[in-house]
Amino acid sequence: MKIRFVKESDYYVISPLINEWWGMRNMSDLLPKLFFDHFSNTSFIAEIDGEIVGFLIGFLSQSYSNEAYIHFVGVHPSYRKQNLGKELYEEFFKTVQESGRNIVRCVTSPVNKNSIAYHTKMGFKIKDGDGFVDGASVHTGYDGSNQDRVLFVKELV
Amino acid sequence: MKIRFVKESDYYVISPLINEWWGMRNMSDLLPKLFFDHFSNTSFIAEIDGEIVGFLIGFLSQSYSNEAYIHFVGVHPSYRKQNLGKELYEEFFKTVQESGRNIVRCVTSPVNKNSIAYHTKMGFKIKDGDGFVDGASVHTGYDGSNQDRVLFVKELV
Repeated sequence: MKIRFVKESDYYVISPLINEWWGMRNMSDLLPKLFFDHFSNTSFIAEIDGEIVGFLIGFLSQSYSNEAYIHFVGVHPSYRKQNLGKELYEEFFKTVQESGRNIVRCVTSPVNKNSIAYHTKMGFKIKDGDGFVDGASVHTGYDGSNQDRVLFVKELV
Repeated sequence: MKIRFVKESDYYVISPLINEWWGMRNMSDLLPKLFFDHFSNTSFIAEIDGEIVGFLIGFLSQSYSNEAYIHFVGVHPSYRKQNLGKELYEEFFKTVQESGRNIVRCVTSPVNKNSIAYHTKMGFKIKDGDGFVDGASVHTGYDGSNQDRVLFVKELV
């Protein structure tokens, strides 16, 4: 497997794949082309034999000079449980540290149990919110009305 | 009128307003909270008597060290044609130049004739695409299947 930076044309490969990889939930609107154009130096593609099998789209926070944010991570369903996601996260963490930053944040939906378990395993802590869903602390209405979110933060050491 | 930086809590005021201001087109998904959290130092609010009447959400490109990008601009329908948008753009341009950059990009839909006319008036040039819609050069499928876009670029002098 090879990990490389995102390039603009990857958008046209990844965008149609997203809904497929997410089991037909409509997710592709959340990842407009601007992320591929303007955050290519903190976003990564995992390839096997030239085929895209995973990606991580992240950026350095402009507001918080010590922070970075992971917006979107996807792994091809046939290539899960093979540490491919872990390698993408670690490449991102390395890049964040090289930029002199040590806080990484991301956000997920409480319905996404796999994501909560995965981030916990990867060393992210859940930021206390104002409600609970299935035992996880959530920030109610964080991403709009009825859009509760679990907020993760990880300190890089 | 007062122009100030965006703060995180503005998201909860602006997000419900967006669909209203855009005549009930579903636009609010295009502006998740992360922009209010992480790009607050290049994003602006216009207020009159403490009421939000306009906003501009933009960021400095991470990939292109000479560029900035305007993601979303909205003005309250009752406050249009009063140069309020112009003041938000000029505040953004000033901030971009203070960051040592001189290229500003943004993207609009060919259906949005007002936006095309407005950006042209503001000195943006249309980047040649691979098709035409009603006389405007478009990049076909730029934001996904059937999502043609007009690409604007302005050089700050």
